[in-house]
Amino acid sequence: MPRLALYRLPMAHPADLSALRALLAAGEVAARDIRAIIGKTEGNGGLNDFTRGYFTQSLMLLLAGYTGETPAELAARLPCVLSGGTEGVLSPHYTVFAAVPGGAPGAPGLAIGTAFSPPMLPWQVGRRAQILAVAAAVGAAMAAAGIASPADVALVQVKAPAVQPAALRPEDPAPRSTAAGPAMAYSRAAAALGVALALGEVPADAELEAALLADFSLFSNRASISSGIEVVANEVVVFGQAAGWAPGPRLAVRPLADALDLPGICAAFTAAGLPATPQLTAADQARLGCVLVKGEPDRRGTVRGQRHTMLGDTDLDPQRHLRGALGGLVAGVAGDGRLFVSGGAEHQGPEGGGLIAVFAT
Amino acid sequence: MPRLALYRLPMAHPADLSALRALLAAGEVAARDIRAIIGKTEGNGGLNDFTRGYFTQSLMLLLAGYTGETPAELAARLPCVLSGGTEGVLSPHYTVFAAVPGGAPGAPGLAIGTAFSPPMLPWQVGRRAQILAVAAAVGAAMAAAGIASPADVALVQVKAPAVQPAALRPEDPAPRSTAAGPAMAYSRAAAALGVALALGEVPADAELEAALLADFSLFSNRASISSGIEVVANEVVVFGQAAGWAPGPRLAVRPLADALDLPGICAAFTAAGLPATPQLTAADQARLGCVLVKGEPDRRGTVRGQRHTMLGDTDLDPQRHLRGALGGLVAGVAGDGRLFVSGGAEHQGPEGGGLIAVFAT
Amino acid sequence: MPRLALYRLPMAHPADLSALRALLAAGEVAARDIRAIIGKTEGNGGLNDFTRGYFTQSLMLLLAGYTGETPAELAARLPCVLSGGTEGVLSPHYTVFAAVPGGAPGAPGLAIGTAFSPPMLPWQVGRRAQILAVAAAVGAAMAAAGIASPADVALVQVKAPAVQPAALRPEDPAPRSTAAGPAMAYSRAAAALGVALALGEVPADAELEAALLADFSLFSNRASISSGIEVVANEVVVFGQAAGWAPGPRLAVRPLADALDLPGICAAFTAAGLPATPQLTAADQARLGCVLVKGEPDRRGTVRGQRHTMLGDTDLDPQRHLRGALGGLVAGVAGDGRLFVSGGAEHQGPEGGGLIAVFAT
Amino acid sequence: MPRLALYRLPMAHPADLSALRALLAAGEVAARDIRAIIGKTEGNGGLNDFTRGYFTQSLMLLLAGYTGETPAELAARLPCVLSGGTEGVLSPHYTVFAAVPGGAPGAPGLAIGTAFSPPMLPWQVGRRAQILAVAAAVGAAMAAAGIASPADVALVQVKAPAVQPAALRPEDPAPRSTAAGPAMAYSRAAAALGVALALGEVPADAELEAALLADFSLFSNRASISSGIEVVANEVVVFGQAAGWAPGPRLAVRPLADALDLPGICAAFTAAGLPATPQLTAADQARLGCVLVKGEPDRRGTVRGQRHTMLGDTDLDPQRHLRGALGGLVAGVAGDGRLFVSGGAEHQGPEGGGLIAVFAT
Repeated sequence: MPRLALYRLPMAHPADLSALRALLAAGEVAARDIRAIIGKTEGNGGLNDFTRGYFTQSLMLLLAGYTGETPAELAARLPCVLSGGTEGVLSPHYTVFAAVPGGAPGAPGLAIGTAFSPPMLPWQVGRRAQILAVAAAVGAAMAAAGIASPADVALVQVKAPAVQPAALRPEDPAPRSTAAGPAMAYSRAAAALGVALALGEVPADAELEAALLADFSLFSNRASISSGIEVVANEVVVFGQAAGWAPGPRLAVRPLADALDLPGICAAFTAAGLPATPQLTAADQARLGCVLVKGEPDRRGTVRGQRHTMLGDTDLDPQRHLRGALGGLVAGVAGDGRLFVSGGAEHQGPEGGGLIAVFAT
Repeated sequence: MPRLALYRLPMAHPADLSALRALLAAGEVAARDIRAIIGKTEGNGGLNDFTRGYFTQSLMLLLAGYTGETPAELAARLPCVLSGGTEGVLSPHYTVFAAVPGGAPGAPGLAIGTAFSPPMLPWQVGRRAQILAVAAAVGAAMAAAGIASPADVALVQVKAPAVQPAALRPEDPAPRSTAAGPAMAYSRAAAALGVALALGEVPADAELEAALLADFSLFSNRASISSGIEVVANEVVVFGQAAGWAPGPRLAVRPLADALDLPGICAAFTAAGLPATPQLTAADQARLGCVLVKGEPDRRGTVRGQRHTMLGDTDLDPQRHLRGALGGLVAGVAGDGRLFVSGGAEHQGPEGGGLIAVFAT
Repeated sequence: MPRLALYRLPMAHPADLSALRALLAAGEVAARDIRAIIGKTEGNGGLNDFTRGYFTQSLMLLLAGYTGETPAELAARLPCVLSGGTEGVLSPHYTVFAAVPGGAPGAPGLAIGTAFSPPMLPWQVGRRAQILAVAAAVGAAMAAAGIASPADVALVQVKAPAVQPAALRPEDPAPRSTAAGPAMAYSRAAAALGVALALGEVPADAELEAALLADFSLFSNRASISSGIEVVANEVVVFGQAAGWAPGPRLAVRPLADALDLPGICAAFTAAGLPATPQLTAADQARLGCVLVKGEPDRRGTVRGQRHTMLGDTDLDPQRHLRGALGGLVAGVAGDGRLFVSGGAEHQGPEGGGLIAVFAT
Repeated sequence: MPRLALYRLPMAHPADLSALRALLAAGEVAARDIRAIIGKTEGNGGLNDFTRGYFTQSLMLLLAGYTGETPAELAARLPCVLSGGTEGVLSPHYTVFAAVPGGAPGAPGLAIGTAFSPPMLPWQVGRRAQILAVAAAVGAAMAAAGIASPADVALVQVKAPAVQPAALRPEDPAPRSTAAGPAMAYSRAAAALGVALALGEVPADAELEAALLADFSLFSNRASISSGIEVVANEVVVFGQAAGWAPGPRLAVRPLADALDLPGICAAFTAAGLPATPQLTAADQARLGCVLVKGEPDRRGTVRGQRHTMLGDTDLDPQRHLRGALGGLVAGVAGDGRLFVSGGAEHQGPEGGGLIAVFAT
């Protein structure tokens, strides 16, 4: 039976797949077992961040040489979830998630399942069509993983398409927004509420499209979303407990109340079996498999009552501000900068906060 | 006998002195008792950050209305140490340090003393002349405070001048550097080694000018330096124990090994009587007086063996990267973003690291 | 009778008024004759650009020493129109406009008139209230100048308030936008249509509030607007022909079709008596009094059919892009970087374009 | 006999080769005839600009499908000269230069020749080894083109390697600089003096290594250099007159005195047969083949005596400033933003200036 395996690998630049190439060449990882890649590249994280697409193209070229598919075929079935922006102490890296055969049966293990929605047309992004497409893809990914119930889902990671202005055609309906920030935010928001819908975290009859970026009382505590122009469909990766999987890594997911929620961060590490007192021991650092974090510049302009300057800065994008700060905090606990910290946590965790997921091996 | 008092005040923008104005109007602070101001403004923290000068001008205008001096006279005797850059969760604020009469005698208390070096000529910045000028000013500030020995000095905060290209005249010797980053770094480095010299942390016969930005084995564990074009002299503020001062706030100063040194940060808070477990309790947050932190993007390109991207980023200044990350980490412990976090810790604490000072009331 | 006089002065930094100080000290300019200041400071030009406020504070302090008013009184009657951002070859500078007595009668001369609207509340910015307030102030400024008819108005320069998030109070109605870019854009748009209304360039019964940032067929060909948080009222400066003024400088104002409209730029210089063939001669450069330019990144994403990247850049603000490019073009014609080039030409000139005003002495 | 042909093509993003793909598919261009690609991508133009590498990877993948080589083999023989940064009105695009057979004999035509130097080791960049390697490659490229004499060379375009920090190994000698700006500048400087040496524009016995970024009286009036981490060798493209080539496009190259040298720009267009009066006519715009421009922020801090702010800006890279301004100026003359405008003109044209090359078809 399959067992989930994680490989957290460094990259020297966005096209550097040498670490994975070495594992494949040595036979330590089989290309056909790879289910998803989640990583951080060193771009600006915005609409015009092309480091994500550059990594994706390089990855698919490498793996296509092993699987016999074309790079395009591979890109249409293998989720590659990249978040740009390694501000501060964050370190460019990627985690390869594989389903390795031959796992020993035992208690239900941590399963991975993936699915792609149909490609989104520009005008569908940030609208009801995307919400429903993501919700359906979450269901498909659960089925692929053999996860029986929404209650067994621990985390849903989505890479959602952002509207690429160059892709617009005059005959198309207008997109929700072509401004760089909102174009990405609406896509994240729709994907987050799509996850919430699939997991039953919001009422099935809620007016979800109207709630996007408006009603932040609706959110998922298990959704982590990145958006970008390098994908055209919603790429969904679901993690959860399933009977058909051998015990493997441990995964703890916790909401974050705000960008200063050090207790929440420590709780997630501890729940994953890596006690933070306040920093992981060296031995536990070696067992750290992957950390995913979402957060956002609080739109009310303050954090715990003190004014922040993230939202009105003409020089530095708000999400770059946020990733630097939240990344610095989580890295201090982990003792390690190889973290997937992503800005824009709209409808992902409570307003002004976000969530953290810790994989321990 | 005097007692040190601290007032940590918010600012709505760099010219907003309304909080101090209210304290002065209410008689809660007497202008003549104010010894120094240390704060963070929301500029870029670089050579062309004018938020520092704007705050200083506004401050001196306000206080001059009380002391009877001209703003220029006041600016020449009252240190106003500003660091630009409130990346991430950092919150613009300033701390007013006052020597309040009528303190109750007791054990030696925390004293404050200040001094100004003569104005520096552009070519003197980052050279031996500045090192010696700072060392002399540290001695003068100790004397002003009544601090008997370098061993009794806890912290020296300096605002050092950076070369303003517009101030250069053809007849002057060339400055050490006019490039924005090095111009500020050399000034910080010279001031740091000036403090180290005054405190006996480096050999008196060391070739200090040659060591600037070159030999990082020479450093001070008690120096915190900011530089900027808004000052023309080295403005020095010394804190330490002195018999003539009533017991007042508690001050703990600790080196930071690197930008992930969460244990070191917690140790400093705990030593100041504010146990970090991992975050200060709400009660202890109310007793937090002021936090000063220095750090830097490790020039070796890695933090704990993992590559960082701070030094080669054409879009985002390395010090903005650093302040965001280190600020996020310390703010998580403090539960508060009103922190003086300043980048560029050359010769201030160990290489790649820095230091932290916590005042508790 | 009065004659308009212009003094274009350099600044070494945003608080450097030394050039005007020297003119005042020498008696070459009388403070009481000064009617307006229009200039460029070296900030980022955005919501968090404090170089404009710093210059204004410094200017009012200087002039108050001459006029006997307080700086606050002066700031409430003397327009100080600053645009941040000296990208590329643009050079920080300011032009002092004065009405000098003793002009020789002749043909109607170029007049200047100024007026302030009442202070705007945050929620009024970018709404009908601001449009009407600006229109009324334009009328008042015309009256102050003795300009008889809208047809005689050559140019209206306005500094309009942008919503300062820190100024919002919970009890106030919500502002039109608190996002940095739109907050400034709505204010510029409302002021532009206010000018258009006053000058009869749009129908008096048009639904102007609904047209803001939506219907770009409504615009003024004689409005140049900057917005910023450093002002609270709409500060209006009107230039035009009036019988009561002695012949003085010549002013030519022309619309710009787009950011490549070199023929339009040359036409404006030539109309001001400074033939551009293609660059001004050295003799004519000495007669150049002041140049005001508005332009914008074309919101359709192309310039003359070729894709531009100004609007989707996460690193560099669109207006910084625009000012650099348009500034470089006009500076090439003028042979001089001391130009007031300002981004955000919403409803000021044709869509995607803007306008240029050239004063020659 | 061969004839030089140019195809200036748009790109929707850095991996968009659709325009060239269409030409290849239609048989309008034969992959084997392509000699070089020169283009602009929409990155930041700095050390961490990966849009150049992304385009190169995409291009080589496309062409390898036609030539039967591997992408790596192709990349080692086909120069792909990319400059990042399309500030302001600049439009991402690339020009394909091909040697098309079957040209009609006539007067000596415009020839193209290319050569690669051996790969540079990091420590060789910005040193004598690079200067000599470029000089040798220029000679090889001339020979490949059949250009008989340095006097017949019109322009040498070089893409030179910048030191990639991740490529450094402990056992290597230290590189000239690892700081982002200087690392690129030293490489450009060495390549420029390598061209100057090959063309006899500097004395053969000059101390060229010592002159790099120090003695700007040594320069080439025919060298245009870009540097970047995406190449490992110096890739050289030489254009000039040769007897073995059929008459083809016309090429005019002129130095630029400074960033305001509009007369110099107009002269280059006019010399190429495209009179600028001041803007090209629509008919002549259709004949515009390719424009290459180099310029730089004047290191003396002024342009024609007026202070500029490009060099001390912590927010915006000096070369981004420059490209925006110079690009805006040349685009105004061309009436077109598809220009290769590149910053950093060290030893390329006179100090503070640069050069312009105009191809007309």
